[in-house]
Amino acid sequence: MIGIEILTIGTEIVGGTIPDTNFLFLARELAARGLRCRWHTAVPDDRETLAAALETALGRATVIVTTGGLGPTPDDITRKVVATVLKRQLVLREDVVQILQDRFARLGRKAPPNIQAQALVPFGCDLIDNELGSAPGLRLQTEEGRILYALPGVPHELERMAERIVLPEISSLVAGTRIAERTLRTVGVPESVLSDRLAGLAPPNGAIAFLPHLGHVDVHLSVEGPAQANDAVLDRLIAEAADRIGDAVYGEGIEELEDVAGRALMERGWRIAVAESLTGGALGARIVRVPGASRYYLGDVVAYDNGAKVSILGVPEAWIRDHGAVSGPVAEAMAHGVRERFAADVGVSTTGVAGPDGGSEEKPVGLVYFGICWPGGRISVRRQLLGARSQVIARSVTTALDLVRRVAGGLAVT
Amino acid sequence: MIGIEILTIGTEIVGGTIPDTNFLFLARELAARGLRCRWHTAVPDDRETLAAALETALGRATVIVTTGGLGPTPDDITRKVVATVLKRQLVLREDVVQILQDRFARLGRKAPPNIQAQALVPFGCDLIDNELGSAPGLRLQTEEGRILYALPGVPHELERMAERIVLPEISSLVAGTRIAERTLRTVGVPESVLSDRLAGLAPPNGAIAFLPHLGHVDVHLSVEGPAQANDAVLDRLIAEAADRIGDAVYGEGIEELEDVAGRALMERGWRIAVAESLTGGALGARIVRVPGASRYYLGDVVAYDNGAKVSILGVPEAWIRDHGAVSGPVAEAMAHGVRERFAADVGVSTTGVAGPDGGSEEKPVGLVYFGICWPGGRISVRRQLLGARSQVIARSVTTALDLVRRVAGGLAVT
Repeated sequence: MIGIEILTIGTEIVGGTIPDTNFLFLARELAARGLRCRWHTAVPDDRETLAAALETALGRATVIVTTGGLGPTPDDITRKVVATVLKRQLVLREDVVQILQDRFARLGRKAPPNIQAQALVPFGCDLIDNELGSAPGLRLQTEEGRILYALPGVPHELERMAERIVLPEISSLVAGTRIAERTLRTVGVPESVLSDRLAGLAPPNGAIAFLPHLGHVDVHLSVEGPAQANDAVLDRLIAEAADRIGDAVYGEGIEELEDVAGRALMERGWRIAVAESLTGGALGARIVRVPGASRYYLGDVVAYDNGAKVSILGVPEAWIRDHGAVSGPVAEAMAHGVRERFAADVGVSTTGVAGPDGGSEEKPVGLVYFGICWPGGRISVRRQLLGARSQVIARSVTTALDLVRRVAGGLAVT
Repeated sequence: MIGIEILTIGTEIVGGTIPDTNFLFLARELAARGLRCRWHTAVPDDRETLAAALETALGRATVIVTTGGLGPTPDDITRKVVATVLKRQLVLREDVVQILQDRFARLGRKAPPNIQAQALVPFGCDLIDNELGSAPGLRLQTEEGRILYALPGVPHELERMAERIVLPEISSLVAGTRIAERTLRTVGVPESVLSDRLAGLAPPNGAIAFLPHLGHVDVHLSVEGPAQANDAVLDRLIAEAADRIGDAVYGEGIEELEDVAGRALMERGWRIAVAESLTGGALGARIVRVPGASRYYLGDVVAYDNGAKVSILGVPEAWIRDHGAVSGPVAEAMAHGVRERFAADVGVSTTGVAGPDGGSEEKPVGLVYFGICWPGGRISVRRQLLGARSQVIARSVTTALDLVRRVAGGLAVT
């Protein structure tokens, strides 16, 4: 099998100053072609470190794509290091000098003296035309048959070169075997339970991975094999996995819970209003992420202060006194109140203890009540959520959106 | 010098399915301590590939931090591979079993059978307590004196463990030359203008980097040299930079605009209420990110629907008809209305066109009005913001928070 390594060269990248968008682009484009990056390495603009990383890459990968270090400044070391590691001479390429001079002429500028540095290229390289910048990319085949692509670090230059030349070439190097992948998104069921439910499902040429987020888990299924056969196997796998997990599956791929809940509301012709306490507006903010949310979202009252729960949402003062603001009856009254206030079909609410302060033995940090009130009924739900303040808030938003999805989708509400 | 390698384990990471936020977090936190990650490697959940990458890492780095692969499912391979590579036995740790059982008990759930998998740990590991999740992290010293930390892949769990234990430990291992870095956070001034204002400021052993975000720009200053000397140079640099930039500097380091605005409100003894339209709850959500926000935040009315602007916020219907919902008068009336409704000292509002639909020639996508009403006056502000829907919303929230910071801090409002 082909093994692909992406080697990022840049002090800012390995230092975390800027995210490695070039790697992400290449890895995703490879995946879209049924290929997989197997190693990703990032190193600083340091000759010794790069040389060692390049030797490691040449020792394990069949295709290596480097990004960065092709510019004209002294910290651009890729050409020199490639020459050293592969024991090839650096030669001054007149064709590269010409390309660079033409480019500066087109821009109406005088070519700077450091142009020569960019035209010093390891012996035996093919050039990859850079339509959007100055330094051309390089392609090199080693004596052992490994193929090395050296691409610039400027994202739009790299992307154009990759799309036009590098990705199609890599794709054509691989005959037959491909990886097909799909992701099921689930909510409300812990990773360990999902793993139990899917035990024994993956075929020998397939894999299942679980990616937990705050309150939801992605189940990632993949199959490796002859390109044509994969899709059918994966379809069966996805169907069986969805069946075993049940209605905790809310979508596929990059679909978000707010998209699914919004679609379910629209299908019913229902409009929704939100009443929030501990989430402070975060639930409304998730709902309006969806373009066109105005078709079903009327608005939100954040009653962070108890006074507003009474005056704006009409929660009976006695209930707050008797049950506390963090309680099932108050959650339900908030949902009911906001539904009335906005003349909505569905009202949904959150009230709880986000922390870090404000918890008690009876009502600890992470205790959250949700209320939902819809044409078919009203209910409150209690959850003990984990994590620090921001996690409790994020998990609360996910739980509330799932309640909306369930009520609007006619699923069981537990 | 110490060489640090971060080794990310995850098929989805190396495949580009999800960005490697754990690496970014660790690299940035190392940088904040004057340390630098020298190698970053990512590999899939594949035993052979991981084993080889781990051997490579142990052959070059003095400190290795792995992320991912500590969960309970079969694709969680880190513990096994570490044991194999270091030729140590996997032992069933009763203390880990106990930690996991206690955790499930606290959650009121029965521990699943796969709990044992997480308690199988290479011989001779120290445990790193995981306050926010189940699998503890591991610390291991090799015979050659290399130190290996194995951390979980769940971001908030990793972050807490890194901040409490791993980063301080790594920091204490290093003496001598450091990179001192500080960051000024600015709002409302474009990167190119900031760059002009700071021209010629950096000393030969220093650097200035500009990191643009949505509506705010971080100015990152660094100096490299003997640990003691750096700080004084950096202090002078920061003071001069802050002076040149002026009141667009809202904070330092990781201070957020909502922290600064909240502190300014508390210093005045003012309480705030929010009225949102296009931001849909995102402004309130930013305010409640701050622990203790309940001391100054009363609540929020999201009047996404125009009816609610009239009925709940008391915006005159004629103003919406005459000026449109996206207008200065309506923004001001929303701020005034919510201030009255919650009996707050400050009311702040947003109304605009988030897109992708709903724009017109007169009121294009990205046009946003802000209103603010405080004991000293009331004003509306017009901004044309750039980007897609989510960017327009994020930039709107930042602009509104900056208005609050300025009004409560007694700065000019423009």
